Amino acid sequence: MLPEMMTMEAIRAAYARGATPLDVVEAVIARRDALADRAVFITETPAEVLRAEARALMDSSAEGRPLWGIPCAIKDNIDVAGLPTTAACPAYAYAPAADATVVARLRAAGALVIGKTNLDQFATGLNGTRSPHGAPRSVFSAAHVSGGSSSGSAVAVASGLCAFALGTDTAGSGRVPAAFNNLVGLKPTPGLVPNTGVVPACRSVDVVTVFAATVAEASEVRRVIEGYDAADPFSRRAGPVALPVRPRIGILTGAERNFFGNAEVEALYDAACARAEALGATLVPFDYAPFREAAALLYDGPWVAERLAAVEDFLTTNAEDFDPTVRKIIEGAKGRTAVEAFRGLYRLNALRQQVAPVWEAVDMLLLPTAPTTCTVAEMLAEPIKRNSEFGLYTNFANLMGYAAIAVPAGFGPSGLPAGVTLVGPGFSDAALEPFAAALHRAAGCGYGRDRGAMVAALPVTCPEGWLTIAVVGAHLTGMPLNPELTSVGGICLEETRTAPDYRLYLLPGTVPPKPGLIRDPGFEGPGIAVEVWALPPAAFGAFVARIPAPLGVGKVVLATGAAVSGFLCEAHAVAGAPEITAFGGWKAWRATRG
Amino acid sequence: MLPEMMTMEAIRAAYARGATPLDVVEAVIARRDALADRAVFITETPAEVLRAEARALMDSSAEGRPLWGIPCAIKDNIDVAGLPTTAACPAYAYAPAADATVVARLRAAGALVIGKTNLDQFATGLNGTRSPHGAPRSVFSAAHVSGGSSSGSAVAVASGLCAFALGTDTAGSGRVPAAFNNLVGLKPTPGLVPNTGVVPACRSVDVVTVFAATVAEASEVRRVIEGYDAADPFSRRAGPVALPVRPRIGILTGAERNFFGNAEVEALYDAACARAEALGATLVPFDYAPFREAAALLYDGPWVAERLAAVEDFLTTNAEDFDPTVRKIIEGAKGRTAVEAFRGLYRLNALRQQVAPVWEAVDMLLLPTAPTTCTVAEMLAEPIKRNSEFGLYTNFANLMGYAAIAVPAGFGPSGLPAGVTLVGPGFSDAALEPFAAALHRAAGCGYGRDRGAMVAALPVTCPEGWLTIAVVGAHLTGMPLNPELTSVGGICLEETRTAPDYRLYLLPGTVPPKPGLIRDPGFEGPGIAVEVWALPPAAFGAFVARIPAPLGVGKVVLATGAAVSGFLCEAHAVAGAPEITAFGGWKAWRATRG
Repeated sequence: MLPEMMTMEAIRAAYARGATPLDVVEAVIARRDALADRAVFITETPAEVLRAEARALMDSSAEGRPLWGIPCAIKDNIDVAGLPTTAACPAYAYAPAADATVVARLRAAGALVIGKTNLDQFATGLNGTRSPHGAPRSVFSAAHVSGGSSSGSAVAVASGLCAFALGTDTAGSGRVPAAFNNLVGLKPTPGLVPNTGVVPACRSVDVVTVFAATVAEASEVRRVIEGYDAADPFSRRAGPVALPVRPRIGILTGAERNFFGNAEVEALYDAACARAEALGATLVPFDYAPFREAAALLYDGPWVAERLAAVEDFLTTNAEDFDPTVRKIIEGAKGRTAVEAFRGLYRLNALRQQVAPVWEAVDMLLLPTAPTTCTVAEMLAEPIKRNSEFGLYTNFANLMGYAAIAVPAGFGPSGLPAGVTLVGPGFSDAALEPFAAALHRAAGCGYGRDRGAMVAALPVTCPEGWLTIAVVGAHLTGMPLNPELTSVGGICLEETRTAPDYRLYLLPGTVPPKPGLIRDPGFEGPGIAVEVWALPPAAFGAFVARIPAPLGVGKVVLATGAAVSGFLCEAHAVAGAPEITAFGGWKAWRATRG
Repeated sequence: MLPEMMTMEAIRAAYARGATPLDVVEAVIARRDALADRAVFITETPAEVLRAEARALMDSSAEGRPLWGIPCAIKDNIDVAGLPTTAACPAYAYAPAADATVVARLRAAGALVIGKTNLDQFATGLNGTRSPHGAPRSVFSAAHVSGGSSSGSAVAVASGLCAFALGTDTAGSGRVPAAFNNLVGLKPTPGLVPNTGVVPACRSVDVVTVFAATVAEASEVRRVIEGYDAADPFSRRAGPVALPVRPRIGILTGAERNFFGNAEVEALYDAACARAEALGATLVPFDYAPFREAAALLYDGPWVAERLAAVEDFLTTNAEDFDPTVRKIIEGAKGRTAVEAFRGLYRLNALRQQVAPVWEAVDMLLLPTAPTTCTVAEMLAEPIKRNSEFGLYTNFANLMGYAAIAVPAGFGPSGLPAGVTLVGPGFSDAALEPFAAALHRAAGCGYGRDRGAMVAALPVTCPEGWLTIAVVGAHLTGMPLNPELTSVGGICLEETRTAPDYRLYLLPGTVPPKPGLIRDPGFEGPGIAVEVWALPPAAFGAFVARIPAPLGVGKVVLATGAAVSGFLCEAHAVAGAPEITAFGGWKAWRATRG
């Protein structure tokens, strides 16, 4: 009924063929029972509970419930009412009174929670070995670490147990396990997705993340879980930030390229850069050093005191119940002073200023998700050193307030996968997705266990709050003024035609040459070819304000009958001007001019 | 040559009458020498240096130097090259290698620095008595405190020694002294004005402020000193936030009204609220409690560790050189842990969320600047308690990231002045000014020593980066759709007419009734009355996108020949429509309809 990877696409196709949520849940239960890696879950949702929830869904409408009947797994530092929250520390376990805000939103959208997944205890680690429940393994090697701290979540998705899983990410916990399991790891901008009901690691920088097969499916989950929550002190309201369609992408250079000797990951990184360029990006080498310095603040600076703040009382009474490495890290915060905390804040803000020129030169960064990997045995032998290697290119992102999406980057000769991460400015989450999806698609490495799966293209949609405009002349794709749209992050939503009652004229003396569109009610022409673009409101405003006479922006009626903002022309300017309506559009007319 | 208060307006009038910067400098020197309050300055710029600088100005052009020949004073925790920086602690004194960024910007704009002013040591205090150089007094009572910590700066301006002065403000140091000396105290949003070259108090929340006679003159200085500076870790780039022309204003209510028994200040506050209402504001009682809790964090919470971070080494070697009260406050930070610092950050952010609904209901807050005052003797008797009274309604503003402008609110029967402060969201600095200026003007209490001075109205200007649009019909002032402009902070810049070659038609069937403006080159009509409005870019974009056919926005040529964005109409819609060009505008035509 379902393919090896239980994607949303596959589940919805099954539903379209007549399958029910109960059928899907039975598949989940069977796969969960059959899973060889017994370290993935800390608590499984009981089969009978899952079946009852599936039946309840079947009695309710899917209308307005975008994740209706989609199974998911939840990292065990995120509250799910009815299941204990343990943060991988059994002595810490509690029965949450309510779902975390993100879980409540998922359930309201129709998702089914199949269980609570294993993690590096208190989300302190990037490797997946720091848990009394054992170390989940990469789905591609039983010897190798799964990555962490969201270890179980990534393995659950990559093993085809569910369509997506929630993780959390402070240093890179929502990205590194994606890399080691051939998945997408979507890490929102801090503050975009609420942390209410999440056990804090570093509360000021923690982020709830999404593991999924594709960017498109991770994006669907993001849109369900994101949004302001007054109960989260760090929840923020902010409009989406736009990025150009053909981005300038910062890539590693010189001494800042450090793969700890892993030539396989290095080659996969270089191949990803080449793919990015082939997809239309401009590659810009940049200096990673200040980002690396920010990254170092997370464990070597005062932020580790946030980890202590989160568990201080419990540590006092239950020090012996901690994983020894986790305990050592958290106890390292004990002597830290408030003066040191503020000095760390000063240093972080100074580094933010230092990297500002980088963001003048690039729109996003392309980095290795993890520069290398290792076996569980190697990790246990040097738990601090190996772990810090994993975080070299991830630790800075939340401190700096950035958005990031980790995508698969293919497999090396060893058979192990590697990933790359696109990092964008805060609240560029949605804007990062199209390029991230294209980069994943171009890698041709499938997703999760299914290395041969086809990655669908991301559907083009108008971001919430953006404004649309129909362009008819020099702003069309390939025409001289098109960069005025693409440079501010404009997205071409569709190519279509106007209603039949429009005439097109060649405006005399315009540079570059421009047409004028005039409505003539009652006229029956071919309709004029237009492109409908979406722009952020401020960019739309600035765009309109720059338009010279005799052109302007009013409403244009499309062939569908819908009215959208679009280019119009003052009537006096077309008096005596050549009419080119018969060509059906500006590009068609231009084509006749050679 | 110059009136009692040395305003920019008075100085420029003198220059227009033929006076020179040397004449102004001689007046400054004479007044400075004659000043009875010898506690105002810590270091005076030597007379010969001032004269040389004046002569240098006379040899250079005033072109592009908006503060050419304007004398100012600088608080002695802000670096001025050539004068020592002491922060009112002689043992701490150093010779700065360069001007602070703000001072460099003032000097580049042509301002003359007349000296370094006294302050509560290390800017720790709101009262002006914590300095080895003595306590400046309110210019209205030699017994009463001047307010602090920017004590000397306020008294220098209020005494007519200079046109403006820079202060700094962490808890309220740029506002409280304004209240006690009948001045405007403009406190920018944290991050808007750089702190490079300023001795830190609490580095993450310190702000450089402006004391001046009027909002208009303080605003001129703000525009010179504001702007991103990469050398300041907390400098921010952010676009201006708009506020409605007729704001909803939050006012104190119930138990949160606390004037510590000072009925005089209470009555002046109530009178200011009544004036705000008379000026068109809607008064909205709100709960000050969460703001008060945030205010308490500044001295009772971990932020005092920032004061320790700023002087830690010096305190170790020179504890005896501190003012005893200042030392006691700063040493109070010694036991604070990093965990406490982060918990303070959590609490502050939780309070930010808690007050979010207030900002849904109001556009700005109107608060007493200081709820009471006292004599120097009273302050010295209870230095911590009295000081904390002063900060009740100021301490929260920088922690919360707000903009504020303190304006005079008149005098009580005692002859002492009081002030009120308008507080707006971060980066609403410019947007607060028109209402603040109107409120000051309406108070009728002059400025500084001159209680009879007329406060000029604030000139209306287009905020930087905003977009203009000429409206011609239902969006004109008083017409039904005008709130679409005012509700998003739109500002009416001018009433004018189009060029003569425009015709106006009554569009049939529009609700509310609307005209259509059509250009007809060669036609010689009366020109059509328009209003030119300024809107923030995103609001402009949303405004244009909402306009229904057959209207749109193109370029309209004004009587001056300038082309601005403005309403146009599709020609087909006016075929057969009544022409009303002869009325010269929509309002004139509407007036004929009764």
